[in-house]
Amino acid sequence: MSDHPLDEALRLAPLDVGRFSGRTTPEYWNMGGPFGGVTAALVLKAVLDHPERRGRPVAQTVNFCAAVGEGPFEIAARLVRDGRSTQHWQVEMTQEGRGTVTTGSVVTGAERQTWAHAAAAPPQLPPPDAVPQMDTAGRNAWLSQYEFRVLEGRTDFQLEPPGEIASAASRLWVRDRPERPLDYAALAALADTFIVRILLVRGYFVPVATVSLSTYFLADEAALARQGARPLLGLADARAFRHGFADQSAELWADNGTLLAVSHQVTWYRD
Amino acid sequence: MSDHPLDEALRLAPLDVGRFSGRTTPEYWNMGGPFGGVTAALVLKAVLDHPERRGRPVAQTVNFCAAVGEGPFEIAARLVRDGRSTQHWQVEMTQEGRGTVTTGSVVTGAERQTWAHAAAAPPQLPPPDAVPQMDTAGRNAWLSQYEFRVLEGRTDFQLEPPGEIASAASRLWVRDRPERPLDYAALAALADTFIVRILLVRGYFVPVATVSLSTYFLADEAALARQGARPLLGLADARAFRHGFADQSAELWADNGTLLAVSHQVTWYRD
Repeated sequence: MSDHPLDEALRLAPLDVGRFSGRTTPEYWNMGGPFGGVTAALVLKAVLDHPERRGRPVAQTVNFCAAVGEGPFEIAARLVRDGRSTQHWQVEMTQEGRGTVTTGSVVTGAERQTWAHAAAAPPQLPPPDAVPQMDTAGRNAWLSQYEFRVLEGRTDFQLEPPGEIASAASRLWVRDRPERPLDYAALAALADTFIVRILLVRGYFVPVATVSLSTYFLADEAALARQGARPLLGLADARAFRHGFADQSAELWADNGTLLAVSHQVTWYRD
Repeated sequence: MSDHPLDEALRLAPLDVGRFSGRTTPEYWNMGGPFGGVTAALVLKAVLDHPERRGRPVAQTVNFCAAVGEGPFEIAARLVRDGRSTQHWQVEMTQEGRGTVTTGSVVTGAERQTWAHAAAAPPQLPPPDAVPQMDTAGRNAWLSQYEFRVLEGRTDFQLEPPGEIASAASRLWVRDRPERPLDYAALAALADTFIVRILLVRGYFVPVATVSLSTYFLADEAALARQGARPLLGLADARAFRHGFADQSAELWADNGTLLAVSHQVTWYRD
């Protein structure tokens, strides 16, 4: 049995303590480089695979410094601070001839049971089966690695301006395709599956890129195991587009109403 | 005329290219270390003061690795990637005997005029003059360096649980005290003035700390200049508190309705 394409894309071979080699895979190719969610998952995986890592992911920031090229890369995780309740990590991804293409920071934390409170609740959505799958044929490869069932938010983009401004908000069900039990690396990638909001708002293709992405993991291992391979409820929106940059925020909810992760990014656009 | 206390706290003496020394000041002292917003502003200032820096701040992430002690510190900014539209920076703050206490990443970008769209709008609030100032006497020093005019959100915390769960949301006017014209460093600090949400929700003091903070700057220099020293409209909320960690998000709006910055953080709490 061959590996899931995500595990294939996240395969890291150790070169030294905390230093790994990997390579991009065609399944997750985007426009001019690999899907940023896989890069985020690789940053996380370099930490998870480090022998000194303790605890589960709490937060990660990924800075997309330069386009990642097709082919091999190296990724190195360094433990900056080993505290009682958290570990702080720095990660750097490099490619021969390109230098540093991605930097990241990751915080891991001990699993603890504490006082808990759900300040926010997910919206009521029809069940996944009641929502048709988005057609990803003929689009950037990575889109076909996910099953999107979209209830709100434009999913088709024109080559010319449609002349109307639309909402930046999306509500959808999303999961890996083929199905795969949820883990933190998959969750890190899913957090970046929310298409750059300016495409929804303007309705046509303009050059875009994610500049920096921060994801907070609010679930323990048990919550991910409970969710398994079923679709997650995803919400995304943006607040402002100005001076060539925009923000966007996303939430990923388990289908039992537990918030698994929140993710924020700043995106670059031209024109 | 003496400097504004914020400029005093942000004073950096160059040691080498991109390496500076500074020291904590009592005015911005918090419970067990300096106010995190000043640390965030120092991370930004180390980049802004670097001779190779081009463009204005777009994004910053600050990881609070360990408590910053009273006294001197060093802070170093390193240009990781110098791209056409963005520069990517890594910053590290160290203290003798404590090692690395803070890490950060900063993205700067060229000032550009592009298509713009305000997807979100601020709520209508009564003008600052109509809202009484929060009394900060007898509380952690840094609170007195800001003028808070709070319309929504608990501001007084008990030593014992009041037994009621309150909302995590705040709406307020906020600015530096004494007044100071807005700039990016001040904005970076203001983004962290939203008290850790668990205190609002539970209503009493539990040990808390910000783990990681990311702020996106959506305004150009001209927008900051237009705002000047007048109060900003601040909004903050949180989504989930679980397993000893919680998220929170904040928005800072100019009084003309322009979104100046959004900020997200993950916080640690005990019990």
